[in-house]
Amino acid sequence: MKPSNTIVRVYRGNITESIHRVHLALVNAQGALLHGAGDPQFLTFARSTAKLIQALPVIESGAADRFGLGDAEIALCCASHNGEAEHVNAARSILGKLGFDRGHLQCGAHEPYHAPTAQAMRERGETPTTLHNNCSGKHSGMLALCAHLGASPDTYMRLQHPVQQLMLEAVSAMSDIPKSQMELGIDGCGVPVFGMPIPNLALAFARLGSPEGLPAARANACQRIVAAVRKYPQFLAGHDRFDTHLIKVTQGRIVGKMGAEGIFALAVPEQGLGFVLKVEDGNQRALYPAVIEALKQLNLLSAPEVSELAAFHTPTVHNWQGTEVGIIRPDFQL
Amino acid sequence: MKPSNTIVRVYRGNITESIHRVHLALVNAQGALLHGAGDPQFLTFARSTAKLIQALPVIESGAADRFGLGDAEIALCCASHNGEAEHVNAARSILGKLGFDRGHLQCGAHEPYHAPTAQAMRERGETPTTLHNNCSGKHSGMLALCAHLGASPDTYMRLQHPVQQLMLEAVSAMSDIPKSQMELGIDGCGVPVFGMPIPNLALAFARLGSPEGLPAARANACQRIVAAVRKYPQFLAGHDRFDTHLIKVTQGRIVGKMGAEGIFALAVPEQGLGFVLKVEDGNQRALYPAVIEALKQLNLLSAPEVSELAAFHTPTVHNWQGTEVGIIRPDFQL
Repeated sequence: MKPSNTIVRVYRGNITESIHRVHLALVNAQGALLHGAGDPQFLTFARSTAKLIQALPVIESGAADRFGLGDAEIALCCASHNGEAEHVNAARSILGKLGFDRGHLQCGAHEPYHAPTAQAMRERGETPTTLHNNCSGKHSGMLALCAHLGASPDTYMRLQHPVQQLMLEAVSAMSDIPKSQMELGIDGCGVPVFGMPIPNLALAFARLGSPEGLPAARANACQRIVAAVRKYPQFLAGHDRFDTHLIKVTQGRIVGKMGAEGIFALAVPEQGLGFVLKVEDGNQRALYPAVIEALKQLNLLSAPEVSELAAFHTPTVHNWQGTEVGIIRPDFQL
Repeated sequence: MKPSNTIVRVYRGNITESIHRVHLALVNAQGALLHGAGDPQFLTFARSTAKLIQALPVIESGAADRFGLGDAEIALCCASHNGEAEHVNAARSILGKLGFDRGHLQCGAHEPYHAPTAQAMRERGETPTTLHNNCSGKHSGMLALCAHLGASPDTYMRLQHPVQQLMLEAVSAMSDIPKSQMELGIDGCGVPVFGMPIPNLALAFARLGSPEGLPAARANACQRIVAAVRKYPQFLAGHDRFDTHLIKVTQGRIVGKMGAEGIFALAVPEQGLGFVLKVEDGNQRALYPAVIEALKQLNLLSAPEVSELAAFHTPTVHNWQGTEVGIIRPDFQL
């Protein structure tokens, strides 16, 4: 284990109660490591950050055009969404265009991430469906690709299925990790996930934002994805979510996505940069504080932007009664 | 930040996705550090591990005898319980003996930790009460002390209240941290929590289990607390909980308690030992794997006991669909 001084402190009262260590890598679209901290070669899974890359085959294949997917629907394909009404409706809309319904989604069901939506559903006695699963957009996009290819929708989650092989190809090419060397696991929603050193994931995001060197069809798909999430950031996550706020606050200058187990990947398209930060222990509570602090120190966020994101930068900690008992603060110098 | 090689790995597929670092200290009842790993002087809050120590004044004061608290009720005073029916009933019983009811508890309400109990309540349309709060036993014990002292039950959570001053005195004396040097914060349930280096908390547990050198009234209270949780381990936590299983599997040879933010403290009374382990980042999922692994390597758990605790030692990780996608494994040598 390498030591890491890139930390986020969780304070209770006057002392640090717990500490999160983070690893980060900033690269350009040629893959040069411009800045690293912690263990900048940390190997882990991209988890849901890969969704923006996994949307590429949905567009490149012609599936998105054939079924008439709009920008909000494309943004939803990239989302770990809140399960709010607009997300559920957009997922239903994609499936409807395919002649499918929520029964085709194999992502499983969970309560909406958005607490007020979940609470309202409970009060109405409604049970969450696959449409509420935060991954329903990604799975709907996979089904669009599946329908376009004429492949079986029953087995679309399997690695051997043509849909997943196209996902693997896209992630491999964008991250410069040969398919044979890609680490594979199973995601929270059942589909394959991709493991790689964090600079490679950062490279994929640098290329997503600055695809000039890529083949034309891929470059076009990259631009369409970035444009879609810039236009509809609320479809990438939702109310009170950092991913959505980051795009809004920077007016689209930065486009980024969280993933489970404390990972964040982003592109700064006009600067040709890709950036990944991983909380070593996987805890989400340290993720946004660390990302904002790093972007601030790398001069990628302005002071007013950091102020607008203060609730994500140094969130307060509350107890069962709602009393403020502590605060989370990044504590590192890059 | 000191480096730490005392880690727990969270695997997904074939690779480590996230890593938890742990700090630990083993001491004897004289406070000598017999074994340390990670940062063995790590400063943090005792959180709910202190509940066994905080039960001391309830007994020493005569409150427990005056109100006729039984051993199950004393064990509940030490608990972060599951909110199962027997826990709720025991808390109600304590309050009834004081002439109080659940309205006197200021701990707030949350759903029972025990998922089937919480699910059954939701299905019956029942709202959790203060009795279901995992700390309702501790708070009921505090109210018993309060009633015995003739102090106001309205303000029993405040640091200046005689009840909290007796808590502070007991934790201070048992841990050898002068009251003026005790770090103080507010717990999840609203009462003061106590911050100290982990060897001091381990010392408090060594003394709890081996109180021969303490004043007679305190030694007697220590023995009564240890006897109570040995007799009623299910009242210390509940079904499917490690604290309860550890006592059962070792037939009371080890008595330990978890606390929020990934801390565990235990006594091995017949060997005069106290032990504390803290997950640096506060994540509970690494706590029991690390505690069991450390106890195994310190020859404090036998191989058959470790086998009986396997589900806590190397728990599997499942996704939304219930598919096994990974495993948590300690990876260190003391």
